Amino acid sequence: MGFIKNTQIVLANRPVAEIDPATTFRKQQVSLSDDLAPGEILVKVLFISLDPAMRGWMRDVRSYIRPVRIDEVMRSADVCQIIKSSNPDFKVGELIRAHCGWQEYSVLKPSDDVVKINAFPGISPSTFLGVLGLTGLTAYFGLFEVGEIVKKGGPNCTVVVSGAAGATGSVAAQIAKHVFGCRVIGIAGSDDKCDYLVKELGLDVALNYKSKTFFKELHAATPKLIDIFFDNTGGDILDGCLRRIAFKGRIIVCGAISTYNDAVPKGPAYYSALITQRARMEGFIVFDYAEQYGKAIEDMSKWIKEGKLKSRETVVHGIDNTPEALVKLFKGDNTGKMLVKVAEEDTKSRL
Amino acid sequence: MGFIKNTQIVLANRPVAEIDPATTFRKQQVSLSDDLAPGEILVKVLFISLDPAMRGWMRDVRSYIRPVRIDEVMRSADVCQIIKSSNPDFKVGELIRAHCGWQEYSVLKPSDDVVKINAFPGISPSTFLGVLGLTGLTAYFGLFEVGEIVKKGGPNCTVVVSGAAGATGSVAAQIAKHVFGCRVIGIAGSDDKCDYLVKELGLDVALNYKSKTFFKELHAATPKLIDIFFDNTGGDILDGCLRRIAFKGRIIVCGAISTYNDAVPKGPAYYSALITQRARMEGFIVFDYAEQYGKAIEDMSKWIKEGKLKSRETVVHGIDNTPEALVKLFKGDNTGKMLVKVAEEDTKSRL
Repeated sequence: MGFIKNTQIVLANRPVAEIDPATTFRKQQVSLSDDLAPGEILVKVLFISLDPAMRGWMRDVRSYIRPVRIDEVMRSADVCQIIKSSNPDFKVGELIRAHCGWQEYSVLKPSDDVVKINAFPGISPSTFLGVLGLTGLTAYFGLFEVGEIVKKGGPNCTVVVSGAAGATGSVAAQIAKHVFGCRVIGIAGSDDKCDYLVKELGLDVALNYKSKTFFKELHAATPKLIDIFFDNTGGDILDGCLRRIAFKGRIIVCGAISTYNDAVPKGPAYYSALITQRARMEGFIVFDYAEQYGKAIEDMSKWIKEGKLKSRETVVHGIDNTPEALVKLFKGDNTGKMLVKVAEEDTKSRL
Repeated sequence: MGFIKNTQIVLANRPVAEIDPATTFRKQQVSLSDDLAPGEILVKVLFISLDPAMRGWMRDVRSYIRPVRIDEVMRSADVCQIIKSSNPDFKVGELIRAHCGWQEYSVLKPSDDVVKINAFPGISPSTFLGVLGLTGLTAYFGLFEVGEIVKKGGPNCTVVVSGAAGATGSVAAQIAKHVFGCRVIGIAGSDDKCDYLVKELGLDVALNYKSKTFFKELHAATPKLIDIFFDNTGGDILDGCLRRIAFKGRIIVCGAISTYNDAVPKGPAYYSALITQRARMEGFIVFDYAEQYGKAIEDMSKWIKEGKLKSRETVVHGIDNTPEALVKLFKGDNTGKMLVKVAEEDTKSRL
């Protein structure tokens, strides 16, 4: 039996508005015993997933998941490698996805939610935090279950995606474009991202919401109005899309990253377009579809192989930089999935 | 052949924010020929219906119906009596509902949308502008088609209705309470209205949104959260209900009267509760259900007879007072349906 020095980052103070890396979080070092009870495994964290939803987890309000407690290790999904096991189903060297949070090591119990990811050769492990992780699944179930893409999709269907260069938005936009053949307009926050959306992901149009003529451009890009709006940002973009929503249009309320740091966010002023256009805004949480994850991952793995689903990652190195990386996510510095690389995989021990 | 002196009220200027009776509208007198082409009828307007939707009709924006033109007679539904007919299907003395607008007389063509209302003895004619008119039908289809009351209704279902003492709200609240047995909380703008909601309409709780402790009271009145929110007002009340929305809650976006006079309305700041609670906000327009009006009127006529649906009217007298009456509607001076009585029915000629 021995002890491992484990760096953790805990929630120190609930931010009222903006996250301040220095005061919102606190780094601490603890000793972790490697003495495992039967069924437990000891894992080393390789990648930490950073997600807009984290801002909500810091808030002490009624939500779909309990808030992270003060002094608790910040919650996240991670890709981990097993370094010690007392569970015959899990072998040293195997890669898993688990919720260890922002720390270097963790001991997982048999009751913890763990997904083996060795089972999919040819797809890089970090993909299981992105396209094949909760962000990709969120895109999938948002479009299928809330956006009614099966019913509405096709060349006469205009789909607009905000945060289109992000981890969820890029998957939603590509499914709408390359699986359902819709006209897809991606909205992002830089000309580089817009280039990426059109040239690499093949969207019909990409619009930079920081352009002074953005709303005119949005109007021009949606001559047949907007049948499905997959919204990751909220704010003025949501209002702009409400003004262009089509009859029986569907607004998939996936996220509202532009408002998460506001003490009291600005609501969508033009929501009464829901009345005049008989439109619907509906929120969802990917966890509700857990029973269908298998089918979704199968579909998306196939689309990856067919070249229909491409992805990028923005990787920050070192666990110490995790708080800063989260702030960058809210600033929109990432293209694709935002990850922190904590440690290298030990490929010698990989099965 | 002769001429009738006809007083009309036309839209003179589109209001930017508040309606100003003196400048928004203009009264004019015209001569109307009583010389009818085959199939036409000449009608005298008895009652003008005033509706919150009128504010939208004055706005020159993309909507579900074309805006009223400048210098055009203001649009409304009316109860009218036929005073001359060259249509064998319509006899002098019969009462009809039609869209004549704000004027004393009108000539209707065979192609105009006209509903005979003599066919329902025992129900007062003005009921066809209220409970059995578009306001009542709006309540019915909002609850049934958008609110999923058939699926959700029952004693474990909490329904909140804003504008509950109004023409639409009072019908929605009573159907939820007395037809589906839900726990129903009505929101209104005076203690008198709240008394009416509890003592006369039999709601479980009525809350005055002007109370300083309104949001606390709303919280206390919804211990099991809000399954269905029938919203006629928007604004802070909508935000308060979003904060109490239940898992898979349904917000029926019927109207937003609190915002109609704002140049740029304030949107619902807490709409991201749609995400955390997997809730839905959906708008609708009663016209979409025209094919089902017959069934709805049959149901509601039955509920009136059973005492499940009561109604009040606030009646302003004289066509000249119509603009002021509309302003009063937006101030919430009415309980139940807001009507202008333009002329007495000629009961001698009634069939």
